[in-house]
Amino acid sequence: MNAISTVASQATPSRNTQDWQAADSRHFLHPFTDFQGLARKGARIITRAENIYLWDSEGHKILDAMSGLWCVNVGYGQQSLIDAAAAQMKELPFYNAFFQTATTPAIELAEVLAEISPPQFQHVFFTSSGSEGNDTIVRMVRRYWDVLGQPERQVIIGRKNGYHGSTMAGASLGGMSGMHAQGGLPIPNITHIDQPHWFEHGAGLRGETAGLTPEAFGLKAAGWLEAKILELGADKVAAFIGEPVQGAGGVIVPPASYWPEIQRICDKYGILLVSDEVICGFGRTGQWFGCETMGTKPDLMTFAKGVSSGYIPLGGVMVGDRVARVLIEQGGEFNHGFTYSGHPTACAVALANIRLLRELDVVRHVREDVGPYLAQRFAELNDHPLVGETQSCGMMASVQLVKDKTTATPFDEALEVGMVCRGHCFGNGLIMRAVGDRMIVAPPLVMTRAQVDEMMGLIRRCLDLTLEDLRKRGWL
Amino acid sequence: MNAISTVASQATPSRNTQDWQAADSRHFLHPFTDFQGLARKGARIITRAENIYLWDSEGHKILDAMSGLWCVNVGYGQQSLIDAAAAQMKELPFYNAFFQTATTPAIELAEVLAEISPPQFQHVFFTSSGSEGNDTIVRMVRRYWDVLGQPERQVIIGRKNGYHGSTMAGASLGGMSGMHAQGGLPIPNITHIDQPHWFEHGAGLRGETAGLTPEAFGLKAAGWLEAKILELGADKVAAFIGEPVQGAGGVIVPPASYWPEIQRICDKYGILLVSDEVICGFGRTGQWFGCETMGTKPDLMTFAKGVSSGYIPLGGVMVGDRVARVLIEQGGEFNHGFTYSGHPTACAVALANIRLLRELDVVRHVREDVGPYLAQRFAELNDHPLVGETQSCGMMASVQLVKDKTTATPFDEALEVGMVCRGHCFGNGLIMRAVGDRMIVAPPLVMTRAQVDEMMGLIRRCLDLTLEDLRKRGWL
Repeated sequence: MNAISTVASQATPSRNTQDWQAADSRHFLHPFTDFQGLARKGARIITRAENIYLWDSEGHKILDAMSGLWCVNVGYGQQSLIDAAAAQMKELPFYNAFFQTATTPAIELAEVLAEISPPQFQHVFFTSSGSEGNDTIVRMVRRYWDVLGQPERQVIIGRKNGYHGSTMAGASLGGMSGMHAQGGLPIPNITHIDQPHWFEHGAGLRGETAGLTPEAFGLKAAGWLEAKILELGADKVAAFIGEPVQGAGGVIVPPASYWPEIQRICDKYGILLVSDEVICGFGRTGQWFGCETMGTKPDLMTFAKGVSSGYIPLGGVMVGDRVARVLIEQGGEFNHGFTYSGHPTACAVALANIRLLRELDVVRHVREDVGPYLAQRFAELNDHPLVGETQSCGMMASVQLVKDKTTATPFDEALEVGMVCRGHCFGNGLIMRAVGDRMIVAPPLVMTRAQVDEMMGLIRRCLDLTLEDLRKRGWL
Repeated sequence: MNAISTVASQATPSRNTQDWQAADSRHFLHPFTDFQGLARKGARIITRAENIYLWDSEGHKILDAMSGLWCVNVGYGQQSLIDAAAAQMKELPFYNAFFQTATTPAIELAEVLAEISPPQFQHVFFTSSGSEGNDTIVRMVRRYWDVLGQPERQVIIGRKNGYHGSTMAGASLGGMSGMHAQGGLPIPNITHIDQPHWFEHGAGLRGETAGLTPEAFGLKAAGWLEAKILELGADKVAAFIGEPVQGAGGVIVPPASYWPEIQRICDKYGILLVSDEVICGFGRTGQWFGCETMGTKPDLMTFAKGVSSGYIPLGGVMVGDRVARVLIEQGGEFNHGFTYSGHPTACAVALANIRLLRELDVVRHVREDVGPYLAQRFAELNDHPLVGETQSCGMMASVQLVKDKTTATPFDEALEVGMVCRGHCFGNGLIMRAVGDRMIVAPPLVMTRAQVDEMMGLIRRCLDLTLEDLRKRGWL
């Protein structure tokens, strides 16, 4: 398919791309960006979207295989979400939940979230983002142990290369070394174990995985949690937090043995289990929540993104009965919250979004139809010379680019081969993200099989272009 | 005016108040709330709003003297904000700014914010809330000093009873003792000086203010910053943060001498000055930003609330040239940001909001018309037996309730006299907040003089009811 569409942008009648780019670099400091580097090349201006496609200010049509940023689960242009926002804004755009007051969309969304989550979740604490949700976890789990008379249970264990947002506490829970290098992170009493990353740990050929099956490696990797707990002393540990599938880390799907073993260890030591469902929630993995796919029963779940399909900022924490009971019955006032905790317009949009997910039976569509098909098509990429590993889970998948696939030898990191591939993707009408040399997708859940085929065609073409490019550069 | 309106709620045809309350307490954990206490009495269900009025599920009409929660600056029901949301959601509800991409509403809002802020502000970093904005400050100011080769400049100085949000870092910057008591706060390298609170410091009769004019006290209170800097060593101090007028602390308006002296001290030691404009921004004080009213030239400003009048979550940091230049030219990638940094729908609503503020000339209205009138009417409350002090600044004002006004003697804290007064307000169609025994308002900026009169009638009536009530209880 031709990446250059004839449909021109409708949103920018009066300014051209250069004008937008100039204004952008004069005033807008982008997230996770080298500001000067971006100013030098100029940002791509995205002007409109429909279903799974974006258009930029130059009229290029782009297949958005990242759902915006892991969030537009129902795709773009869904009128029922727009109508819900407009109707609620007209009725009551905002009111707070601080003054012993509540609004009906917040109550109704709390009810619906309790319905669609695993049975232990009957309560929700709202925020406006996943970062605020994960940040809330830190105060909430410590408060829980405090109320129970175990204030020394302060430590939260996360994972290297985990991602839990960008507030000081969220970035501390996460294990991104680049983030820890800026701003005095992590904050105290947060520590990390290594990730269950089969490829990085040697792909069965060397290192921690040498001679192991993936299942055996999953048990071994979960064992790092037990070792850390014993090192710290279980009576110092408040909680363990992880994403069912690491998203920003590179769509790293753990072996099936991993999460049940994590659950067993948390249970053994009485440690709270927190499932970060910001990416995995709302159907992404083929169940409403990733923990259901992975077979755990977490005490707390954070969510954002897919709850509103990104149409409006919303996030929160599902609080399981174990924690809720203590906070409600013995906690007194919980001195925490946000102006927009339970924002009625955000909640109304989320309600419309969940209604649509149910009406379209999207979770089943992912689990039984398009998810397995994506897995099959991704597995086919293993024949490509650049591909060292593919993984998928529901509607998220990854491809590990390697220098030598027979030995699982990676490229020199400094070459930034992933960015080379991303360049070919962006230039050919496909948004595919690079995490190091791992190329990842997480397309809208409403994607059809035909659209999966279209995406896979683009991916294979871009892998071929990357291969050719690397050969020209003499990197292969 | 009669607090019971005949206009019934339109939003809840199928459920009655008890049903909503039961669902609320089953599922919704409210911010800053004793969950069990709220469940016992049942939340008030707010169902719709127009201009400066709310209606609850029982059909009561309520004058919202708190603008939702300091945010609905343009009042409820503004069609142009609703239209902007719907139009942008249809065109492009969301796209990220991570992938060297930008959207036109984010660029345009960044431009407009640069236009309306003081001239040193040409760059903006977007978040979805004031909490995320203040949290960003911690990473940003430390990164700034790091890039300049002074990584030991880590400490940020805030103020007791200041409020900078509820993330771990935001709550640490703030000086709310109740928040610090839950969750292991503050995080390291954040410290606090006392607040410039004339009444709490003795109202000129005793303590720090004894024998001082307010102006002299302002200089003295600013001097606490210099003392703290000298105690820590200036080469360890990164920044000072404060709200121009403390909002959640109780609408505490510092003496006019305070902020210029703070500026002088920051300049003397080269320390970054951060103005938290989450409440004071977007016209609240009679200028676009509170720092303009207070006469400072901050290096960074955080904003939220009024930027979108609360119709949709949005916040951010205005980055002054001093910091922006270093981060852009020498910083490389800033490893920080949020999925919804520059959310196009949120930015489109903010653009419509600022357009409306300009069209209606709201900032001038506050500065020259309704703000001075509010000040005059609040000052008249000083004749009331319960009133020990009134303060106002633009469209925010406070009344200190006292046991004996001649000696400025406060009530016993345990009596929670402010909550008694708040109860009378809520029961009589007025949302007025209690902060301890300080009653505060921050009504929509579009309020008319006639509406100020209406509000003042309600306030005086509620003060009278409180007085009567306290006498009955034998507390006076």
